[in-house]
Amino acid sequence: MTLSVYLSGEIHTDWREQIISGADGLDIAFSSPVTDHAASDDCGVEILGAEPDKFWHDRKGAQVNAIRTRRGIEQADVVVVRFGDKYKQWNAAFDAGMAAAFGQSLIILQPPEHDHALKEVDAAALAVAREPKQVVDILRYVLTGNLPG
Amino acid sequence: MTLSVYLSGEIHTDWREQIISGADGLDIAFSSPVTDHAASDDCGVEILGAEPDKFWHDRKGAQVNAIRTRRGIEQADVVVVRFGDKYKQWNAAFDAGMAAAFGQSLIILQPPEHDHALKEVDAAALAVAREPKQVVDILRYVLTGNLPG
Amino acid sequence: MTLSVYLSGEIHTDWREQIISGADGLDIAFSSPVTDHAASDDCGVEILGAEPDKFWHDRKGAQVNAIRTRRGIEQADVVVVRFGDKYKQWNAAFDAGMAAAFGQSLIILQPPEHDHALKEVDAAALAVAREPKQVVDILRYVLTGNLPG
Amino acid sequence: MTLSVYLSGEIHTDWREQIISGADGLDIAFSSPVTDHAASDDCGVEILGAEPDKFWHDRKGAQVNAIRTRRGIEQADVVVVRFGDKYKQWNAAFDAGMAAAFGQSLIILQPPEHDHALKEVDAAALAVAREPKQVVDILRYVLTGNLPG
Amino acid sequence: MTLSVYLSGEIHTDWREQIISGADGLDIAFSSPVTDHAASDDCGVEILGAEPDKFWHDRKGAQVNAIRTRRGIEQADVVVVRFGDKYKQWNAAFDAGMAAAFGQSLIILQPPEHDHALKEVDAAALAVAREPKQVVDILRYVLTGNLPG
Amino acid sequence: MTLSVYLSGEIHTDWREQIISGADGLDIAFSSPVTDHAASDDCGVEILGAEPDKFWHDRKGAQVNAIRTRRGIEQADVVVVRFGDKYKQWNAAFDAGMAAAFGQSLIILQPPEHDHALKEVDAAALAVAREPKQVVDILRYVLTGNLPG
Amino acid sequence: MTLSVYLSGEIHTDWREQIISGADGLDIAFSSPVTDHAASDDCGVEILGAEPDKFWHDRKGAQVNAIRTRRGIEQADVVVVRFGDKYKQWNAAFDAGMAAAFGQSLIILQPPEHDHALKEVDAAALAVAREPKQVVDILRYVLTGNLPG
Amino acid sequence: MTLSVYLSGEIHTDWREQIISGADGLDIAFSSPVTDHAASDDCGVEILGAEPDKFWHDRKGAQVNAIRTRRGIEQADVVVVRFGDKYKQWNAAFDAGMAAAFGQSLIILQPPEHDHALKEVDAAALAVAREPKQVVDILRYVLTGNLPG
Repeated sequence: MTLSVYLSGEIHTDWREQIISGADGLDIAFSSPVTDHAASDDCGVEILGAEPDKFWHDRKGAQVNAIRTRRGIEQADVVVVRFGDKYKQWNAAFDAGMAAAFGQSLIILQPPEHDHALKEVDAAALAVAREPKQVVDILRYVLTGNLPG
Repeated sequence: MTLSVYLSGEIHTDWREQIISGADGLDIAFSSPVTDHAASDDCGVEILGAEPDKFWHDRKGAQVNAIRTRRGIEQADVVVVRFGDKYKQWNAAFDAGMAAAFGQSLIILQPPEHDHALKEVDAAALAVAREPKQVVDILRYVLTGNLPG
Repeated sequence: MTLSVYLSGEIHTDWREQIISGADGLDIAFSSPVTDHAASDDCGVEILGAEPDKFWHDRKGAQVNAIRTRRGIEQADVVVVRFGDKYKQWNAAFDAGMAAAFGQSLIILQPPEHDHALKEVDAAALAVAREPKQVVDILRYVLTGNLPG
Repeated sequence: MTLSVYLSGEIHTDWREQIISGADGLDIAFSSPVTDHAASDDCGVEILGAEPDKFWHDRKGAQVNAIRTRRGIEQADVVVVRFGDKYKQWNAAFDAGMAAAFGQSLIILQPPEHDHALKEVDAAALAVAREPKQVVDILRYVLTGNLPG
Repeated sequence: MTLSVYLSGEIHTDWREQIISGADGLDIAFSSPVTDHAASDDCGVEILGAEPDKFWHDRKGAQVNAIRTRRGIEQADVVVVRFGDKYKQWNAAFDAGMAAAFGQSLIILQPPEHDHALKEVDAAALAVAREPKQVVDILRYVLTGNLPG
Repeated sequence: MTLSVYLSGEIHTDWREQIISGADGLDIAFSSPVTDHAASDDCGVEILGAEPDKFWHDRKGAQVNAIRTRRGIEQADVVVVRFGDKYKQWNAAFDAGMAAAFGQSLIILQPPEHDHALKEVDAAALAVAREPKQVVDILRYVLTGNLPG
Repeated sequence: MTLSVYLSGEIHTDWREQIISGADGLDIAFSSPVTDHAASDDCGVEILGAEPDKFWHDRKGAQVNAIRTRRGIEQADVVVVRFGDKYKQWNAAFDAGMAAAFGQSLIILQPPEHDHALKEVDAAALAVAREPKQVVDILRYVLTGNLPG
Repeated sequence: MTLSVYLSGEIHTDWREQIISGADGLDIAFSSPVTDHAASDDCGVEILGAEPDKFWHDRKGAQVNAIRTRRGIEQADVVVVRFGDKYKQWNAAFDAGMAAAFGQSLIILQPPEHDHALKEVDAAALAVAREPKQVVDILRYVLTGNLPG
């Protein structure tokens, strides 16, 4: 059975590509939010019409994106949530909360300096990784039983 | 029937007290996380034994706190999540994600400067309030049908 | 055990009062949406701030009302949905759909001229009544086993 | 993974065909109720035997149709509900209520003149569209991340 | 916590009274279907209007009774289903199937001559009793840990 | 999407074969209990060892059969339950109760003489058919929208 | 709101009494399996009749006990599972698995020498305690926010 | 439809291979935990970094393994749990508890000397087998209706 993995969180580095290429050859179906920042911000008004008020501009977009993200999280076996160095990243923590509530397996990918701030999120996770390669290693082990090296 | 309201998020201002005292006379059972910062951070090691590694120190505490917070969220009719000016507040966003996934009614209490960063969280909420009094007004309206003023 | 009954739908006649007074003496906890039409329409903007666009004015109000209505439907043993002579009443049919999906017992109260238009809604109901008294008779029978007359 | 989309509501214009042809090339499995009005009305009695009373004639048909419609809604990732200019369309609002209760992503397709009457239904939706092309644009964006134009 | 016990099935002997009086002093809330055979058969048409066709006469009544029986089964901790000597008693087996699917604890009360015919129902039960007193003994043991004698 | 149909109940006539051959060409996956009466009765002791007490002989078999029947019911879109002329058929009514509790679409296939005894079971069904051909007609209509004749 | 705590596992020492007396004054409703070993072993045959085969003797008793234990676990907010020095204690681990699957908060109480053997069970727990007093301290903290000492 | 079977428990004999080869030709998808003892123990620290404290060493590994085992149990139609002669095997009983809570069909494979200690686990199972061949015979019967010999 194909493993479904949803890659949530930070969209400014190539961590998704590292995981996907690292997992080459494994029976995994990856999904993720739309990672084109401008498209993600403007999809609501681009499709459904402009809003003068930025609050509703954002709302329209966030709701359209939710069609994709909620499906991705609900249908995943494993949800990987990456926290990076910049921005508030509350949507990442929100996705982690949904994944935990749905009972999905949660892997957090984060630098050590966020350990204390992420302790409640980490406590709901089955693994806390520092590097994308570690996520690949976990996925390979889960599917094949093989450890790295 | 008593309305169960869980007050999640920021613990450094008196917003909880404002809501609870403002709601005086309404049939509401409030619950919240432990808001004593030091106790919340150290409960795990205080009770279950010290950990030399801060990561596990935090984990032990976060897990003990989860006994209380998860129950609070699951048993609530309404979950209010407050985002303040400081700290990462990922646990607040995580709680909001859990509440959304459980299908609880979600009210976000936040200053306007966080609107864009919170757009995915707000999009899952039934109300976005700026002041504790607005939360009280919503709770009163939900219970009695009476509007303020 | 108290029977929880949610009274959804038309707010322009006194059908709710007829049912509640007719059920006097029975162990029933009634709930209902806010039936003050103006308050129901304006609660969002009254509490959370005005909106120049009527669409968002309505949205804010509908979401605040949803805190009450969804709780009422989810916690009910029986959901009674009344369709009257006027207006679109799509919110009534929407409530009936939610009640059916949640597996609550559904009673539809409607005049015969709506039979064909309501056939899908009626098909999900355990009773289709014409008069509030019939709803009272059903509730009394469900609680006591006694038939009228 | 194929996106499952259920097209509920109005059956007198070609909006379903517009969406399906507009979505040509996307990995979507569309489903819908039986849109042959006469067959939909009479399926119960045609198959299971005539009823002298129109109420039961309608009931038999509505129940047979429910085998198809409930499955369509339950198995969908996205439920699109179209409200048109004519008829009561309570079955459309009922389907929207079921979809909301099941937690499916809901898109409402409606003309602006129904905004106020549909405010409770719209408030449960992730998008309110005016034209079938907008629904197509949303579905394409959800699947590919590409915006129109 | 009070134990909720639903007593389903045969309505022609006093087995319910034997269990209820035998359990006197235990913290149990008993519920049951309407056991007045005539009222149970005619409740639908008595309240909602006569039907010339016996099939719909029965349907109306069965649906009104379902408001009570389904609530009783869903809210019970323990469902006791009694099979007697006469009649088809398919409603009893239907109730047992619902209780099993809902995950309620099921006790079957039946004479040995029905063992083979009830083997699928018995296989879903946590106890197969022959006498009402045995049901009382089980309920007392479950609540107090005390065995008879 | 293939329609999953579970055929429960009476095993002494060829009604299953009539439905399956009648549905030839439709995208349906049929499943059913083991219909070899002797194998069904003895599977437990044949595989797991003899039992001197017929009660446990039956139990062992019923439990092994439950692996197949419960899966069939849970994974079905439509559960057809056939009641014939002979035997108690409590397992059929039990299956119908499980299907109703799981929210599956239920079709009852029965001769009119059982109408009154089956009224509670019928009341949970979306169709009550008299002949296998009617079940085929329903399945064809649900899948294609085409009525017979 | 009263905290419901189920005390599962080892029945040969007074750890339950230590927890219950230590929690004196806290708003907790404790429940537990029947801890009278002989009654627990023989309840099935004592009430429902002797079995010559020890396997069925045990089965009858285990099923009667399951009425109590499953209800206790399902209705608990917190499930404490104690592993002691003797016996296989598979029922304790089984209860822990049920509690984890139901999403209840799990506290394991065990001596360090079982750490490795219990690692999968511990990994599903929110706390691993060594002494009953630590369980009391956790429960007090969860209810009051107060730490010991 | 392929039958999904998860093989949990003892990893020191070839019982999994006996079942898989015995089931050759049947439409079954088998899954199991990682059965390489060393890899299973060390996967956490090998991938995510060493831990000086054996408790956290074990925790890290158990949590990574849980990604695989919980998915296997949740997605299975049938969960077979094998108890052998050695070790505590609490993880096996824990898996059985999860499978029971999720409502999966449970088959226990164990020597008779463990009957009394496993009585609570066995009581939740649909079959208690002594030999791998019996498990194969059950799976074949469930899929084909054919008994051995």
